[in-house]
Amino acid sequence: MGVVTTAKYIAPELLAAFGEQFPGIEFSMTVSNRGDIIRRIQDSEDDLYIMGQVPTDEVEVEATPFAWNPLTVMVQRGHPLTLLKKPVPLHAIAETSFLIREAGSGTRNAYLRLFSEKGLKLNVAMELSSNEAIKHAVASGLGISILSIHSLALEGTKGPVEILEVEDFPILRKWYLVHPRGKILSLTAQKFMEFTISQEQFITDRLVNLWPDLANYL
Amino acid sequence: MGVVTTAKYIAPELLAAFGEQFPGIEFSMTVSNRGDIIRRIQDSEDDLYIMGQVPTDEVEVEATPFAWNPLTVMVQRGHPLTLLKKPVPLHAIAETSFLIREAGSGTRNAYLRLFSEKGLKLNVAMELSSNEAIKHAVASGLGISILSIHSLALEGTKGPVEILEVEDFPILRKWYLVHPRGKILSLTAQKFMEFTISQEQFITDRLVNLWPDLANYL
Repeated sequence: MGVVTTAKYIAPELLAAFGEQFPGIEFSMTVSNRGDIIRRIQDSEDDLYIMGQVPTDEVEVEATPFAWNPLTVMVQRGHPLTLLKKPVPLHAIAETSFLIREAGSGTRNAYLRLFSEKGLKLNVAMELSSNEAIKHAVASGLGISILSIHSLALEGTKGPVEILEVEDFPILRKWYLVHPRGKILSLTAQKFMEFTISQEQFITDRLVNLWPDLANYL
Repeated sequence: MGVVTTAKYIAPELLAAFGEQFPGIEFSMTVSNRGDIIRRIQDSEDDLYIMGQVPTDEVEVEATPFAWNPLTVMVQRGHPLTLLKKPVPLHAIAETSFLIREAGSGTRNAYLRLFSEKGLKLNVAMELSSNEAIKHAVASGLGISILSIHSLALEGTKGPVEILEVEDFPILRKWYLVHPRGKILSLTAQKFMEFTISQEQFITDRLVNLWPDLANYL
């Protein structure tokens, strides 16, 4: 299975839970950014893909949404922006040193689209090619950024990185199970799709548990 | 600057601290696995690299060690292995379902070498292409693995993943600042090297703070 980089936060849990229901199945999972995943789909390298944005121009696919993947503004705990009246206006985000994901990242595409629609331009301080590098850089005070709430699954929202309430956020995205159109899925891949779709409410509950404000937006 | 995937835990903090001393300097940082970093060195794409294992066969480089990067066995909190007498024997690790990094990972090379020297073979359950996918899979109970202690920097050692005391562990590695032999470094890169080397004790203290047992091995 190929998963976009952000999906690495959710795919292992799904595989673990699936493996408990269907013991003896072996998996492998490759984590790449959106650009690489699209190449893997074109080459038909994996059974299934988990992506945050369905590719439409590059390759013909079937896509099934299955869980929320909300993007929020992440800042160092106690960052000056946290002192502003909530929700913080979008232009204040655009004016603050920003840590951007590399070209080819679906997360990056999603927030660049929002800022461009609002006629705003991000003040990019550094480009980093992984969510964790961004998280560590936010925690170190190098700048702020926008990440999936799933990226805080292990450390929670009380750690060195906090979620800021910002105008026009969260960006509500979904995860999609994707496969090349017309490809006949293995029985295992079909079962995994059914299982994953059945986990939607469970995943939503966990996200709301991580960041209770999310319930106001769903 | 190019950094191997595991170095993304340390490089942002170094850049942040360096940027405070020398304001106005702009950076970019690319995170790749060992194989890709070696290609980037060959193509001279970056000023400096941070790696956990100096490439010797593939490319001529100069390398300066600067901080500890200990690898430890990571298990789901409360895993049956935690009930064994400590240190857990190495063969017990080899017999447990193991989550392995992809080929090309320096971390993977380091632990495969240890097990092969001891005449043991890992029981590989799944191959995952990022430290975070591994961490989430360990936390989900898909298996155990071996990761740099630095990978727990944000969530700490009291979270869903715990460090297991195992015979022949930690594998004590160092981080190296690497650049192509003979390449004239920019003034900024030279300053960053000096600064990074000066941070060694600080980084060691932070690791010991994260996992106090480490002090017994240094």
